[in-house]
Amino acid sequence: MSSSSAAPTAKPPMRDALVAAAFQLFLERGYEQTTVDDIVALAGVGRRSFFRYFPSKEDVVFPDHERCLADMTAFLAASAEADEPVRRVCDAARLVLRMYAENPTFSVQRYRLTKQVPGLRAYELSVVWRYERALAGYLRGRFADRPGGTLRADVVAAAVVAAHNNALRSWLRSDGEDDAGVAVDHALGYVQAAFGHEAPGHPAPDHPRAEGAEDVVVLVARRDAPLWRVVQEFETVLGRG
Amino acid sequence: MSSSSAAPTAKPPMRDALVAAAFQLFLERGYEQTTVDDIVALAGVGRRSFFRYFPSKEDVVFPDHERCLADMTAFLAASAEADEPVRRVCDAARLVLRMYAENPTFSVQRYRLTKQVPGLRAYELSVVWRYERALAGYLRGRFADRPGGTLRADVVAAAVVAAHNNALRSWLRSDGEDDAGVAVDHALGYVQAAFGHEAPGHPAPDHPRAEGAEDVVVLVARRDAPLWRVVQEFETVLGRG
Repeated sequence: MSSSSAAPTAKPPMRDALVAAAFQLFLERGYEQTTVDDIVALAGVGRRSFFRYFPSKEDVVFPDHERCLADMTAFLAASAEADEPVRRVCDAARLVLRMYAENPTFSVQRYRLTKQVPGLRAYELSVVWRYERALAGYLRGRFADRPGGTLRADVVAAAVVAAHNNALRSWLRSDGEDDAGVAVDHALGYVQAAFGHEAPGHPAPDHPRAEGAEDVVVLVARRDAPLWRVVQEFETVLGRG
Repeated sequence: MSSSSAAPTAKPPMRDALVAAAFQLFLERGYEQTTVDDIVALAGVGRRSFFRYFPSKEDVVFPDHERCLADMTAFLAASAEADEPVRRVCDAARLVLRMYAENPTFSVQRYRLTKQVPGLRAYELSVVWRYERALAGYLRGRFADRPGGTLRADVVAAAVVAAHNNALRSWLRSDGEDDAGVAVDHALGYVQAAFGHEAPGHPAPDHPRAEGAEDVVVLVARRDAPLWRVVQEFETVLGRG
């Protein structure tokens, strides 16, 4: 697909050229030693063009987060009552991973740059905070009727972001060679196991459900489940049945 | 106790005077409109004295976080093998709450200021991130022998910080009138319930343990628990036994 396509998500070529010029200079000279004037000179455009796309030099380092935040907000706004809330925020977090995984080389370069420049690290923290608030805002709405709903929303949102970032950093440290999707599925699965069953609008399973991990078995059942089904499920997960 | 005491935690009077002068001016004129020169003029000291205590104007807004971070690091370093790790990081988080609760008026003023000034919000995010990394670093050590230990450490640390901050913000919004300790105990209790039983060094319960909430029962048992004990526990929590 040509980057001059009229599709709404198409990036203008000038914007792409500015990002490419900026990263070429950041890698050659270092971030602090590169000015906006250097970037526009290499890209062959004027300063005003730069600031049309990016409020500051920091923003050119993270050119896709605003779009991704907008995509996440739209995704959450399009949720149905039937969506299990914890699963839904996990799926929303996957949108961020996808953005990184779409361009591994760029993502790995940026990861190295961000680790070296404290100002970029601070910028990244503010971006992560905005993702976390978007997830927490959705969960607060879904948990509004429950006692402790805002606490639950804030904790789950933070856990989802931490799990996502753990997987993302592992993938970045592998130079983008590992399978990012597998890592994030594992990480988000851990959060869903910890919190997913408590969500409102997500009825308790019709049948008792047990999961085994190492030396512990966790069994979730409806209060009104028949005892024989609980025993059956327990025996099944233990391989004793 | 006099503030000129020689105890290691005593604050020098000049440092206190600078913080007091800074907040007087921030409240009168606004943060952005106050310069370091204004602060040192009101405190009656030279610029060099200011920068001996505070690297920047932002740092005077959060004068106690470095000490609190040092206290938290020391507290975690003094942990024993017998300490249940999730409980230990919850107790470490309580040190932060205590710092805020020691001086409610100052904490509430700062809360309002931070909400208004984006630069202070960014500073606060970087402080929160340092607390979170301190907690995660301790947990990574404790969970080092387990598969997925770093994931677990990062998620639990983020959950503890989110729960703490949820309670802290509720207390700040009450203008420091609510009981901060009760709020944080409730919030951290939620995280301990979600994650505490999984911690290493904290063996699976010798006896199956079930907890009932609304229409769902969650039962945790060792794999080698005798079936009759599982059934007994399940019946007990359901009140069917």
